Amino acid sequence: MIRVGVIGARGRMGAEVVRAVEAAPDAEVVAAIDADDPLSTLTEAGVEVAVDFTHPGVVMGNLEFCVANDIHCVVGTSGFDGPRLEKLTSWLAPKPSLGVLIAPNFAIGAVLSMRFAELAAKYYDSAEVIELHHPRKLDAPSGTAAHTARLISQARAAAGVPAMPDATVEEQLGARGTLVEDVRVHSLRISGLIAHQEVVFGQEGETLTIRHDSLDRKSFMPGVLLAVREVAKHPGLSLGLDKYMDL
Amino acid sequence: MIRVGVIGARGRMGAEVVRAVEAAPDAEVVAAIDADDPLSTLTEAGVEVAVDFTHPGVVMGNLEFCVANDIHCVVGTSGFDGPRLEKLTSWLAPKPSLGVLIAPNFAIGAVLSMRFAELAAKYYDSAEVIELHHPRKLDAPSGTAAHTARLISQARAAAGVPAMPDATVEEQLGARGTLVEDVRVHSLRISGLIAHQEVVFGQEGETLTIRHDSLDRKSFMPGVLLAVREVAKHPGLSLGLDKYMDL
Amino acid sequence: MIRVGVIGARGRMGAEVVRAVEAAPDAEVVAAIDADDPLSTLTEAGVEVAVDFTHPGVVMGNLEFCVANDIHCVVGTSGFDGPRLEKLTSWLAPKPSLGVLIAPNFAIGAVLSMRFAELAAKYYDSAEVIELHHPRKLDAPSGTAAHTARLISQARAAAGVPAMPDATVEEQLGARGTLVEDVRVHSLRISGLIAHQEVVFGQEGETLTIRHDSLDRKSFMPGVLLAVREVAKHPGLSLGLDKYMDL
Amino acid sequence: MIRVGVIGARGRMGAEVVRAVEAAPDAEVVAAIDADDPLSTLTEAGVEVAVDFTHPGVVMGNLEFCVANDIHCVVGTSGFDGPRLEKLTSWLAPKPSLGVLIAPNFAIGAVLSMRFAELAAKYYDSAEVIELHHPRKLDAPSGTAAHTARLISQARAAAGVPAMPDATVEEQLGARGTLVEDVRVHSLRISGLIAHQEVVFGQEGETLTIRHDSLDRKSFMPGVLLAVREVAKHPGLSLGLDKYMDL
Repeated sequence: MIRVGVIGARGRMGAEVVRAVEAAPDAEVVAAIDADDPLSTLTEAGVEVAVDFTHPGVVMGNLEFCVANDIHCVVGTSGFDGPRLEKLTSWLAPKPSLGVLIAPNFAIGAVLSMRFAELAAKYYDSAEVIELHHPRKLDAPSGTAAHTARLISQARAAAGVPAMPDATVEEQLGARGTLVEDVRVHSLRISGLIAHQEVVFGQEGETLTIRHDSLDRKSFMPGVLLAVREVAKHPGLSLGLDKYMDL
Repeated sequence: MIRVGVIGARGRMGAEVVRAVEAAPDAEVVAAIDADDPLSTLTEAGVEVAVDFTHPGVVMGNLEFCVANDIHCVVGTSGFDGPRLEKLTSWLAPKPSLGVLIAPNFAIGAVLSMRFAELAAKYYDSAEVIELHHPRKLDAPSGTAAHTARLISQARAAAGVPAMPDATVEEQLGARGTLVEDVRVHSLRISGLIAHQEVVFGQEGETLTIRHDSLDRKSFMPGVLLAVREVAKHPGLSLGLDKYMDL
Repeated sequence: MIRVGVIGARGRMGAEVVRAVEAAPDAEVVAAIDADDPLSTLTEAGVEVAVDFTHPGVVMGNLEFCVANDIHCVVGTSGFDGPRLEKLTSWLAPKPSLGVLIAPNFAIGAVLSMRFAELAAKYYDSAEVIELHHPRKLDAPSGTAAHTARLISQARAAAGVPAMPDATVEEQLGARGTLVEDVRVHSLRISGLIAHQEVVFGQEGETLTIRHDSLDRKSFMPGVLLAVREVAKHPGLSLGLDKYMDL
Repeated sequence: MIRVGVIGARGRMGAEVVRAVEAAPDAEVVAAIDADDPLSTLTEAGVEVAVDFTHPGVVMGNLEFCVANDIHCVVGTSGFDGPRLEKLTSWLAPKPSLGVLIAPNFAIGAVLSMRFAELAAKYYDSAEVIELHHPRKLDAPSGTAAHTARLISQARAAAGVPAMPDATVEEQLGARGTLVEDVRVHSLRISGLIAHQEVVFGQEGETLTIRHDSLDRKSFMPGVLLAVREVAKHPGLSLGLDKYMDL
């Protein structure tokens, strides 16, 4: 049994993590702490892997403590920039067997979609991204769509694929979507939807479409569990859940 | 057997019409004329229904001749504005049993899609249109998509449906598509595609999607044949193939 | 304000109805009763429209009481066969202004899908139904899919459409789905899905696809509210929510 | 310029290959032969890579000649079983720098779909395959769909994924499709379609769908060109175009 500590256990994601780990046959929650609880609870409980869904203001302190105490870390909290990653790397330097995963997205389908899009990119003349979300979303396009577009763009550039064909000369403003690097992204906001994304690739005579539908926050849990099981096998700092997957 | 005359018979669409009528069990081509042939060929051949796929510069002359000679007309040529329709109506006034159909689109799936979109519009909070075409297309959005958006917008207005929910405050230019009246339209240009359209409706807990895929010019022929069979039963001027369908 | 009484108010659907009516600007719940409460609560509260989501064993008694007391009825309970409908019709005979709606499905998207499928059926050579549900579902195909297939089959028969083309000579058992009348239905059971249906129509050169995704029980509420608002305007017995819609 | 010889150049696929190679900037057709032409034409023309779309009765003779004469081979002809592959391997043994590719499918989208399905398989509870073809197809399911199902089944078995959840107790015969190993496959035959496939994966809260639409025989040509460019870099016998792709 993997001994798991959940940091931010009373938050929405943290609470889901507690439930998911407890339902898993090979892991157990031995510590579930939140803002008011001391980090020493983790060491006292003998935590092997800590899962952190907190916020940018406290996550670095949590990580410093865990690394110092030889606890592997799975982190879904956002806000990691270059300086933070450097600091984390320096903390990890004297701990060659310790693993830390920072992942922006634990939905396995989102991770697979992005990776497949990246792999397919160089084989097609055209690629565009459609993302569809509930109408309460504040930004367009979604971060995942923009990231997917960037991966496609970079893969095409690396392979020397020429610019996409597009004869449009008369465009009503916005019809052709927004450009993320050189990939078009289209954002729909539809009542009743949750979070959905479709990447469409095409060349003469055929198209390939990769669609991900995320219907519930529960969809992140298989990815969190996968990370909990794999983190000890991947020493050092890993960015993105795909690093733990066979892709 | 319905005696059909094809005007513009050497054009791409006209040639398809000749083939389609000849393959039909209940109609036959008795005259197939093009730019250099006299219109009198139609009357000499005893044409009952003329099908016109020519161009805006000649179609009015063709129609004047046909109406004067009691030939029903099925017209796929574009360029009909208010004054032209008025003139046509005046020609038809003394011919109470003669039918003329002017249709912008003979693809039955496109006609059904637009009609269904119009019918569904007032029952949903949100509606957006995605159209996907080959990258040689010059304009965005497509005429059919813009027309569909207009039908949805008008149906919502007529039923007093409130504005669509949309909390977007941070939009990268063009991400949310273009507005046709108050309906968002998104245009993709993908190598390998032909002509495709998807209308997405949504409200709390459910979505409805109507998709039309047009893969070949042949897809217009069932609509042309339907019009050839129905035009004599619909005296006067009809606009749009849906007028001949049970919708 | 329409004065609504909810029968079966503590059931899953009944509780949703109470919430939805209370959130509506033009209706209010004046009585919410369940198994142990007397029906006279409805008359004492001055209920104009009763909504019944109970079970086949009690619904006839509820309806007899409501009709006798001039209360319009919206019924989502199942189990109505010929004899029950005849009895209901006889109760309604002396009440020319009273309306009763019996509807198997209040999801507007499902109602629209079925109606559109019925309207499109005669214009296409081929039509098949795919339904996709969560893997806890006990029967395959779903009742809605079977009903949709029957509507398509009957519309084709009424229009004299020839049998669908199908050259299959070597079929691995079950590959081509099950036949409902003469329409093929395919059932998928996929973890993560809720209730989804796709009807695919095709003819030379084009296809039309109508897809309905139902993600939440809440999706029935707009249909229930529509029925509550319309039932008084439709005297007599109506079967199916589409009777109250402009289709 | 890669010097290409096309064997079976007057067949449907061979003729497309000739056109595609001639349109490529880095390859040229220096020999195009068919049934009546001597194989020595290939050596006389200095062919570096031979492309064979012929039939099972002659392909082994063609390959024996090419291997003996140090010509790399790209083969789309079917009919390769164990004994044939062994014989080919023995011919190649004394030619350590010669490459031969045998590929059942040159559509890049089909190859990517299958590979992505194989990669995704172990991360999901449920997986089913839908294939949709024109109604003139003789067999169901399609070979590609059956192959995809087998890849999914084997990937799940290798990873120890438990059986898919499915509570169906009342199935109308065929509704749940056919089983290929333990993966359900559903075959639709729809007029207007060409060749399409959709793989649906799901787990609690999310689904992933991989769809491939093949609209034209031209869609095989980018794969053939990729093979022509890569075959010399992959000595020995390779089975499947994916061996030449970065997947």
